[in-house]
Amino acid sequence: MRSTFILAALSCGLCWGQSAEDCKPNVLNVPEAKYPCVYPDNRALFRVVAPDAQKVTVRIGRGFDMTKGPDGIWSVTTTPLVVGFHYYGLQIDGATVADPSTMTFFGSGWQNSGIEISAPDAEFYSPKDVPRGRVSEQWYFSKVTGKYRRSFVYTPPDYETNAKAKYPVLYLLHGWGEDETGWYTQGHVDFIMDNLIAAKKAKPMIIVMDNLNAVKPGESAALFAGRGLVPAPGAAPAARGGAGAPGRGVPPAGSAPGAQGRGAAPAGRGPGGFNLSAFTDMMFTDLIPTIERTYRALPGRESRAMAGLSMGGMQTFTTALNNLDRFAYLGGFSGSCGGRGGTFDPKTTCGGAFADPAAFNKKVKVLFLGIGSAEGQGAKGFSDALTNAAIHNVYFESPGTAHEWLTWRRCLNDFAPRLFR
Amino acid sequence: MRSTFILAALSCGLCWGQSAEDCKPNVLNVPEAKYPCVYPDNRALFRVVAPDAQKVTVRIGRGFDMTKGPDGIWSVTTTPLVVGFHYYGLQIDGATVADPSTMTFFGSGWQNSGIEISAPDAEFYSPKDVPRGRVSEQWYFSKVTGKYRRSFVYTPPDYETNAKAKYPVLYLLHGWGEDETGWYTQGHVDFIMDNLIAAKKAKPMIIVMDNLNAVKPGESAALFAGRGLVPAPGAAPAARGGAGAPGRGVPPAGSAPGAQGRGAAPAGRGPGGFNLSAFTDMMFTDLIPTIERTYRALPGRESRAMAGLSMGGMQTFTTALNNLDRFAYLGGFSGSCGGRGGTFDPKTTCGGAFADPAAFNKKVKVLFLGIGSAEGQGAKGFSDALTNAAIHNVYFESPGTAHEWLTWRRCLNDFAPRLFR
Repeated sequence: MRSTFILAALSCGLCWGQSAEDCKPNVLNVPEAKYPCVYPDNRALFRVVAPDAQKVTVRIGRGFDMTKGPDGIWSVTTTPLVVGFHYYGLQIDGATVADPSTMTFFGSGWQNSGIEISAPDAEFYSPKDVPRGRVSEQWYFSKVTGKYRRSFVYTPPDYETNAKAKYPVLYLLHGWGEDETGWYTQGHVDFIMDNLIAAKKAKPMIIVMDNLNAVKPGESAALFAGRGLVPAPGAAPAARGGAGAPGRGVPPAGSAPGAQGRGAAPAGRGPGGFNLSAFTDMMFTDLIPTIERTYRALPGRESRAMAGLSMGGMQTFTTALNNLDRFAYLGGFSGSCGGRGGTFDPKTTCGGAFADPAAFNKKVKVLFLGIGSAEGQGAKGFSDALTNAAIHNVYFESPGTAHEWLTWRRCLNDFAPRLFR
Repeated sequence: MRSTFILAALSCGLCWGQSAEDCKPNVLNVPEAKYPCVYPDNRALFRVVAPDAQKVTVRIGRGFDMTKGPDGIWSVTTTPLVVGFHYYGLQIDGATVADPSTMTFFGSGWQNSGIEISAPDAEFYSPKDVPRGRVSEQWYFSKVTGKYRRSFVYTPPDYETNAKAKYPVLYLLHGWGEDETGWYTQGHVDFIMDNLIAAKKAKPMIIVMDNLNAVKPGESAALFAGRGLVPAPGAAPAARGGAGAPGRGVPPAGSAPGAQGRGAAPAGRGPGGFNLSAFTDMMFTDLIPTIERTYRALPGRESRAMAGLSMGGMQTFTTALNNLDRFAYLGGFSGSCGGRGGTFDPKTTCGGAFADPAAFNKKVKVLFLGIGSAEGQGAKGFSDALTNAAIHNVYFESPGTAHEWLTWRRCLNDFAPRLFR
């Protein structure tokens, strides 16, 4: 009698029929879509219409095989998910596609589905009744790439009313496989900054979110190599992102040991094999002049900061450490020029940027290294090595998160208040 | 011998192996994706990785069944497509999903794939070397709906430099199943306006692109009824968008006789059964005050225009004809309060708005009715009836296009120069 009761209770924990009202629709769903939904314990229930499919899997970090119901609808309830934003996709009979029930988000070179598991500290990246800044789309022509490019630009709440004021500028980069939409769509840069500025925790600033993918005319582009695009006829079949594979569709979630390791490319070369210097050239030739001509931006190195996540952190260190006459603030969120193993040697690490600690500390007002606690010890080791070498730096660790957007939202929330003091 | 040659030529026209270099990647593909691609005669070649699927179909207006190759990749070449932007989707073993090879676009209540067939007049909606306006994201809290809402706002090129100037405002709405991203993503509102303003064809103006879906607290929302969302367990299975079905996934393309007819809902009720008056209330209580407080907007009816496409046109006429003290310019692009059959009677049609032609003509500076030539005769009949009733109006017809975005880009390009004269 007692054991029957326990069995019933256990099986009810997994049967959505009875606990459906506890499962709240994912906030990133398209309007009126009830699924995916999230239970109070952060398990998520996915449902997909695929009546004639043989196999359907939700790929969110790992794969969760779905079960087909008599109505032709496939379902699965996951194990509890980590808080924050997760990209995800479906595999339907071998095709990797987005779930039509959610809005889509550009990551790993394609439009993934997204699910948000509310974090206990979600308030910092949520809209509040405070004065609002504005994110604008800024098109410009790049002489370096020979193409029109798009940047998103955050201007602080008083930018419009305080018509003579000039503002410092933070250049803020996304990660591999993402684009200029990442920081304002997945990152909520505007809500984070509006809230910080309203609380007088951060100075009003302009934030420029560009696309770190820059290719010069005639250079080959392989920005998204390995993500499983449909190949030209006769070429080898595309990688399809099986469990744990680095292919397109689902970036590594949960702990992501490969993420930092991914940066272990030759100096100056990004993971896709393209040249990080093209972006640096584009930034100095096209982007910064466009911004300083178009917006009321303060000039000079002490009014310029640069930061980025993952590959964007690597780009930041490559660009800024070689151009400290132009930047006084640097941030690497889950990515920098160090922390990927090997011996720290101030004379050679990061191109010898730390060879003269006194000179470095005088020039660089803030050197920030952020990481998710589930990402491993690389960034902490790098920070400790810098500290041992007498290089001033800030180490920030996001508790319980991996190589994902909640880590980077928290990094920005900690980094921005340190700028332009 | 001769017939053999003809057969070879015919089959070669369909075999991508030999003419692959003529097939140019769709400009809306994700970076580096070669497929879908478009041939010079506007046939499109689609390729999808789905090695274990039984049946894969491209749904772009009608369905095109794909064929599986030995490499597990499915392919199909369509018949020549109409110029302009088309939403499309895939059906993979009964699941309606976006093609992972393209960027996605919100229409019919979900994130569709998109393909652009270049139009002979594409220059008017393409970026050129002219001064650039800016599209900004504007968040605000709505007292009427009790929620935060997002608007996109276009400001003209001289808005930032001409810091004391005030500008007239066009409120511009999307169609059913779309949202506030439609006009700037699918519509290229910024490129169209930058080009018109640079050519001195249109006056500099602010354009506000809001989301026409507004629901008051406690009202039921069925904005996207019929689009095939996954139902709650035990409910009837979702509609799945079979050929010609009105379900989610693929909006009617080609000629869309149902599109105008879709508006034949009871007065004041939208296609999804929700109340058009909620948007009107929200607009007057929340949106217009936010815009006029936040931007340098000229006040008064002669500095305000309203236009929309399809259901947004219906909303425009419902809102503006009942509030002519607030608007002097109206545009309906493939949608208005008339043209859906029945007898035109100035005393009753559109709530009797045209009962006094002299008074109407004095108040309304421009009444614009635009349509695609493939959409049928409803709008032309309505325009003729208005003209016969001595109501001044402008009729614009987009040649060769249907109920799709090229029609609406062309409508805007013709409508905007008529405003605020």
